[in-house]
Amino acid sequence: MGDIRVTVWHEFRHEKDGQHPSGKIYPEGMHKPIADYLNAQPGLSARTATLDEPEHGLTEEALANTDVLTWWGHMAHGDVRDDIAERVVQRVWQGMGLIVLHSAHFSKVFKRLMGASCDLKWREADEKERIWVVEPGHPIANGLPHYFELEKEEMYGERFDIPQPDELVFISWFEGGEVFRSGCCWTRQKGRIFYFRPGHESYPTYYNETILKVIANGVRWAAPQEGAEQVYGHCEPLEQIGR
Amino acid sequence: MGDIRVTVWHEFRHEKDGQHPSGKIYPEGMHKPIADYLNAQPGLSARTATLDEPEHGLTEEALANTDVLTWWGHMAHGDVRDDIAERVVQRVWQGMGLIVLHSAHFSKVFKRLMGASCDLKWREADEKERIWVVEPGHPIANGLPHYFELEKEEMYGERFDIPQPDELVFISWFEGGEVFRSGCCWTRQKGRIFYFRPGHESYPTYYNETILKVIANGVRWAAPQEGAEQVYGHCEPLEQIGR
Amino acid sequence: MGDIRVTVWHEFRHEKDGQHPSGKIYPEGMHKPIADYLNAQPGLSARTATLDEPEHGLTEEALANTDVLTWWGHMAHGDVRDDIAERVVQRVWQGMGLIVLHSAHFSKVFKRLMGASCDLKWREADEKERIWVVEPGHPIANGLPHYFELEKEEMYGERFDIPQPDELVFISWFEGGEVFRSGCCWTRQKGRIFYFRPGHESYPTYYNETILKVIANGVRWAAPQEGAEQVYGHCEPLEQIGR
Amino acid sequence: MGDIRVTVWHEFRHEKDGQHPSGKIYPEGMHKPIADYLNAQPGLSARTATLDEPEHGLTEEALANTDVLTWWGHMAHGDVRDDIAERVVQRVWQGMGLIVLHSAHFSKVFKRLMGASCDLKWREADEKERIWVVEPGHPIANGLPHYFELEKEEMYGERFDIPQPDELVFISWFEGGEVFRSGCCWTRQKGRIFYFRPGHESYPTYYNETILKVIANGVRWAAPQEGAEQVYGHCEPLEQIGR
Repeated sequence: MGDIRVTVWHEFRHEKDGQHPSGKIYPEGMHKPIADYLNAQPGLSARTATLDEPEHGLTEEALANTDVLTWWGHMAHGDVRDDIAERVVQRVWQGMGLIVLHSAHFSKVFKRLMGASCDLKWREADEKERIWVVEPGHPIANGLPHYFELEKEEMYGERFDIPQPDELVFISWFEGGEVFRSGCCWTRQKGRIFYFRPGHESYPTYYNETILKVIANGVRWAAPQEGAEQVYGHCEPLEQIGR
Repeated sequence: MGDIRVTVWHEFRHEKDGQHPSGKIYPEGMHKPIADYLNAQPGLSARTATLDEPEHGLTEEALANTDVLTWWGHMAHGDVRDDIAERVVQRVWQGMGLIVLHSAHFSKVFKRLMGASCDLKWREADEKERIWVVEPGHPIANGLPHYFELEKEEMYGERFDIPQPDELVFISWFEGGEVFRSGCCWTRQKGRIFYFRPGHESYPTYYNETILKVIANGVRWAAPQEGAEQVYGHCEPLEQIGR
Repeated sequence: MGDIRVTVWHEFRHEKDGQHPSGKIYPEGMHKPIADYLNAQPGLSARTATLDEPEHGLTEEALANTDVLTWWGHMAHGDVRDDIAERVVQRVWQGMGLIVLHSAHFSKVFKRLMGASCDLKWREADEKERIWVVEPGHPIANGLPHYFELEKEEMYGERFDIPQPDELVFISWFEGGEVFRSGCCWTRQKGRIFYFRPGHESYPTYYNETILKVIANGVRWAAPQEGAEQVYGHCEPLEQIGR
Repeated sequence: MGDIRVTVWHEFRHEKDGQHPSGKIYPEGMHKPIADYLNAQPGLSARTATLDEPEHGLTEEALANTDVLTWWGHMAHGDVRDDIAERVVQRVWQGMGLIVLHSAHFSKVFKRLMGASCDLKWREADEKERIWVVEPGHPIANGLPHYFELEKEEMYGERFDIPQPDELVFISWFEGGEVFRSGCCWTRQKGRIFYFRPGHESYPTYYNETILKVIANGVRWAAPQEGAEQVYGHCEPLEQIGR
């Protein structure tokens, strides 16, 4: 069995404006440390793609060769072409895994797959985030302590307007008083979707080893299954009934 | 507490072409027996709306005065205006109940709310359908026998490409050998959605008392709850933490 | 339709030892303010029952006349007779609602119905608890703000070892850094079960209007449905197949 | 990573009475073809254990060395020692996978883990069973067609009195008119449980390649995950809050 082929997709705009702190934290973009970490894991092979590449780096061929796609976007959700967002959605239905990171809760792809507003509360106030493992037997929790922390993060708070997750793996506690369903799993047709909350662009979250481990665990969990044959549409009478 | 205000929405095209059997079965449209039945129930008050009315009979005002919307469509899903489909979706999120009937599995509104293809298998062969109650304590099952039957119906078969239902109330057995998740419940934001399978336009299904009872049960289940306050967006630090 | 008949069951031991603070907070037992509140609500009618009554106040007749049972226990879980715990379980399966309060997570009845250890983390340190509404459209959230608080409570923290709830209504934030799934719903056969976290015996939690409102909402949600006929066991061939 | 260690547990009574047809179908017991098949799969290593061995072949040591336990029982559920059933339950909570086969729906272990009656309808009438894949992306469906059949099986029909499955993979259609949730998944603490319906003792079901493939898929799905650390009980204030 070959490696799981990951495409780390990043909007990659904040880092390039020369002003935003993320340019200093992630001089080559936040997709760089994520892809580097994944490439260092056995069985994973990552490439990157960004918004300003032709077709956002998500050609039919690129997606056909992607087992799991990670997605980070924030300021330019609206610049993602509708037809390419739809292409990603279709590929998820066929079985490609999707890891939705932080502010990508408002991406076209995630909102389309959820059928929901995906709205939430937020505050940028350098708050401590403590992430609790709610499902200790879930593969996305492999190798984790019972909780882990980020010293400073943006706060996201409930109500997070999503369909009830099929599996809820993490809940975040924030210093300022909020909670958030931080690790949520869904299946849509043959594709697995994992939303993972941390990763505001003003903090070095994607250098944190535990955060990276969760992303790698998510990639392994979301990797396509062979699964069963699918048949849709008009269906002849089954012979053996003899109708 | 006033009545639950139901809008029975119907595409109403098959019945009008002068050829289709549904014109004989439902000379005033299939919305008529549904609305008549609902209006005969205590606590329910139904009106109808159809595709060819201005704004499909679904003006902002009409929706604002609707607690639960039932939806049947088939040959003209594409004629539903995108902005009106989106208006319905937004109203569901705010709390309006939605009862999705039979071939409305392919309606714009349902597909948008599910984020899925909503595809399935089908066959028109005058088959018996036997519907089993899987969750006997569910309010949509109120007053039902452990199973009920339709002598002839269109077959719908699995895989039904939907997000896993929050609650699965009915499973259908078909004479020709297929099964189908026939009664499925979801919540999206504050709105409850019930998909109910039977109701092909060539059969008198919507005169069947048990089928009508299930629709009425669904309406009562999907009626808006007061629920809790919702707050989204930027959020000031909570005072009591004193940050 | 008559009132929903509630039995407020309480272990009622802490309050009677003459030493424990709960004796001062709840001189007649914590079942008193709960039952008083419920009796003041339209459509609800409450009686009380306690551990030291004959058959714990839970005779066959008492249970047959109970629509919803609320349960609080802590120091004397082991004194509940096994046969009476089983009697309660059977009655839940038949449709009686069950509201499981605070330390009743370790009651025989709840552990039996969950098939799980129901273990958790805890700490008594006078911490603020802030309870967030995660499902704003759920009937148990009716009339609530987007969050509510208790100035001082015992902390319960995740991992709460329960089967994944069918519906997760509340998540608690604690001052000391933990989170907890505070409002959880399940169905077992025809019975609805609601676990609600607050209510340590050293605090006047059951005088808090919002807490009492949630309990009343829970009672209304858990009240028995008529539901469908249930048939189990050996099953003759269905005639219409002609086998 | 070593093989997944499977213990194929079988009641093994029907085959030994010299009268029952299962003695001819499975002269060495039905555990034999199951274990043989599993041992022929890469990465799986199976042993067997039966009711009449000391401690039913399920000593503490045997269970400690079992990653996944498959369980078939029927006529002698009551002969399983309560303490050994509880030992199995505890081991499931710790992470051992459990595959529950056919009439083991009424086993002590399964009923205890479900907290439900696990009752159902049944009929022995040599009926065709057709099993539909409802979740084509689930690992238990790997390599399957969209449906598969057994020419003759015992009928099991809904209502199957179980907690709503976390994932529903298969639904069965029976010639006589019933349906059944035939492939159901749950997680309890760290342990995964898969119920799979087919396998009446009077038919050669456990020689069917597709049935055996599903069992092998189930074993792989239920194999223990490393998962996260678990901490329960009294919990000191977390230092970093500085309380």
